[in-house]
Amino acid sequence: MKDGMSYAPQGKPNPVVGAGEFIFAAVGLDHGHIGGQCNGLIEAGATLKWLYDPDEKKLAHYMKMYPGAKAARSEGEVLADREVQLVAGACIPGERCALGIRVMEAGKDYFTDKAPLTTLAQLADAKAAVDKTGKKYAVYYSERLHSEAAIFAGELIRDGAIGKVVQTIGLGPHRLNAGSRPDWFFRREQNGGILCDIGSHQIEQFMYYTGAADAEIMAANIENYANGHHPGMDDFGDCTLRGDNGATGYFRVDWFTPDGLSSWGDGRMFIMGTEGFIELRKYVDIGRVARGGHLFIANAKGEEYIDVEGRVGFPYFGQLILDCLNRTENAMTQAHAFKAAELCVKAQMLAEQAKGIV
Amino acid sequence: MKDGMSYAPQGKPNPVVGAGEFIFAAVGLDHGHIGGQCNGLIEAGATLKWLYDPDEKKLAHYMKMYPGAKAARSEGEVLADREVQLVAGACIPGERCALGIRVMEAGKDYFTDKAPLTTLAQLADAKAAVDKTGKKYAVYYSERLHSEAAIFAGELIRDGAIGKVVQTIGLGPHRLNAGSRPDWFFRREQNGGILCDIGSHQIEQFMYYTGAADAEIMAANIENYANGHHPGMDDFGDCTLRGDNGATGYFRVDWFTPDGLSSWGDGRMFIMGTEGFIELRKYVDIGRVARGGHLFIANAKGEEYIDVEGRVGFPYFGQLILDCLNRTENAMTQAHAFKAAELCVKAQMLAEQAKGIV
Repeated sequence: MKDGMSYAPQGKPNPVVGAGEFIFAAVGLDHGHIGGQCNGLIEAGATLKWLYDPDEKKLAHYMKMYPGAKAARSEGEVLADREVQLVAGACIPGERCALGIRVMEAGKDYFTDKAPLTTLAQLADAKAAVDKTGKKYAVYYSERLHSEAAIFAGELIRDGAIGKVVQTIGLGPHRLNAGSRPDWFFRREQNGGILCDIGSHQIEQFMYYTGAADAEIMAANIENYANGHHPGMDDFGDCTLRGDNGATGYFRVDWFTPDGLSSWGDGRMFIMGTEGFIELRKYVDIGRVARGGHLFIANAKGEEYIDVEGRVGFPYFGQLILDCLNRTENAMTQAHAFKAAELCVKAQMLAEQAKGIV
Repeated sequence: MKDGMSYAPQGKPNPVVGAGEFIFAAVGLDHGHIGGQCNGLIEAGATLKWLYDPDEKKLAHYMKMYPGAKAARSEGEVLADREVQLVAGACIPGERCALGIRVMEAGKDYFTDKAPLTTLAQLADAKAAVDKTGKKYAVYYSERLHSEAAIFAGELIRDGAIGKVVQTIGLGPHRLNAGSRPDWFFRREQNGGILCDIGSHQIEQFMYYTGAADAEIMAANIENYANGHHPGMDDFGDCTLRGDNGATGYFRVDWFTPDGLSSWGDGRMFIMGTEGFIELRKYVDIGRVARGGHLFIANAKGEEYIDVEGRVGFPYFGQLILDCLNRTENAMTQAHAFKAAELCVKAQMLAEQAKGIV
């Protein structure tokens, strides 16, 4: 699909549980990512029992996509259902934390779209709720978790293919499609700002590929280069980070994908190691292949193009289901998910301060 | 060639003057770039009359490359020759300014390898000498001037193909080849540090593609990630800039090109406009084509790969010759050449300060 808002990748079914062994609901259908979240879980064997959104149009749209699910009459109906083990949500970013706390306090794990929260106060509340309930606040960082190239890069790095990772550069361009965007898209206080919203993917990847447990925002900047008629919007953002292990990272996010590109964004990731480097072309190989899944690697042995489409799958979702069942942290640690969230909020705050945005 | 140190591109002859109408010399043969400088000028019709370096081995090496030239016995012999209109030089970066001042005071234009100088004091001296003599202090920013992809990008931008340029990202990886490097390569005070040395290409390109006349260094960082046995060396550097026109830029330079890459460096340039973007793969299309000259563009009309090798040429050299003859500034303004030099020195200073290097 060309539109990042309705990006709902499908992979090969690879169930880790039998039918009915892991039941989940989807609540808060504002962002199209909810489709990717549901697809990933369903392919891994989960059963989608309920769909709910206060907006009947949105609910009807997703009921068509998932005809096996039931339309709930209220959020309360979902939360009261003891069969539901996890609630997936993609509501407006500024409301994701509040939903998560309600979900966890109802005794269920939470799986939110990124960015998982938009302020440091929300982060503190989310952490407190996780501590209190023992439940999970998992995050759909889709630009890694739902990209076979990104998954395969992680495997190559783990195998030592490029030595020690010392720097990453991520490019996260997106198509604006301004006419199709809801009001909250243009309000920084509701979407968290560009570094928090689509920047969250980037910071998560920096932490993951470098192995940093924490990081410092060295510089962060936001701009509105071409959308002055939407003053609450950032159409550009960039940021440099330094991990607690000395690795550094840069990323750029923007809403400048031109209409002629065959993808919603020419997302790239450059991973530099002491003994080689990897480049990912996640959604298009510009001018050559109008689909994603492209990995390029160079090390002492040579340089190589690897087409990973259909060869790697999306192991996160099965791992998440098993983590929920076994109370393990193989899919992603809670600390990692929260740290990426914290840093993207801090990057946005730093950039807003520099611009005098209060 | 695989080695950036002996990078001496050859293009198609496209003379702007007749034989003997523009006579130059090459003095200071420490960096292989001198070959690119001479080739460019010769292809544009210039006559290489003299070669000089105090090191007889270096002199003999270049006498073999340019058998039509004469080996001078001293720098003074070259500077005293009234026929010589321009002196090209690629001595040790820290000595380039002093050579340039001697050249200009001898009444000749100067064409130095990048970085053209390594301190702000040298910059002040160079500017004063230009003012006093009326001569040119031209700079071989080869990663733009000797790259057909880079030249063609400039033409596309001038034609409005991607709207207004708002951001650039440059990647300037280089192969270390530590064993073949002279001592000065590992001494920051002689090469100016990584942001000054190979970073100078990047800042020049940022200024050129965005059209900024001046810029602020927003952040700059240097690291020695894997060469602790050379403590005077930076093997990594990166920097963000903001132009006086609001455009922003990021670049990374490093010495981590792995031995298996078919080029000395997978140099890239991403140029983001309000109506499209351009990517350059200057020296290799990794995993696909083991030579340079690759331009990718996306705008409202579509996405396209353009193989520019042999189709564009290197107009800088002919323009420089005509600028010297006609006292014009079509190849590059003196202000632009000096501003890029100033900013790369400032970026390196900022990064060194942050690291506590005095």
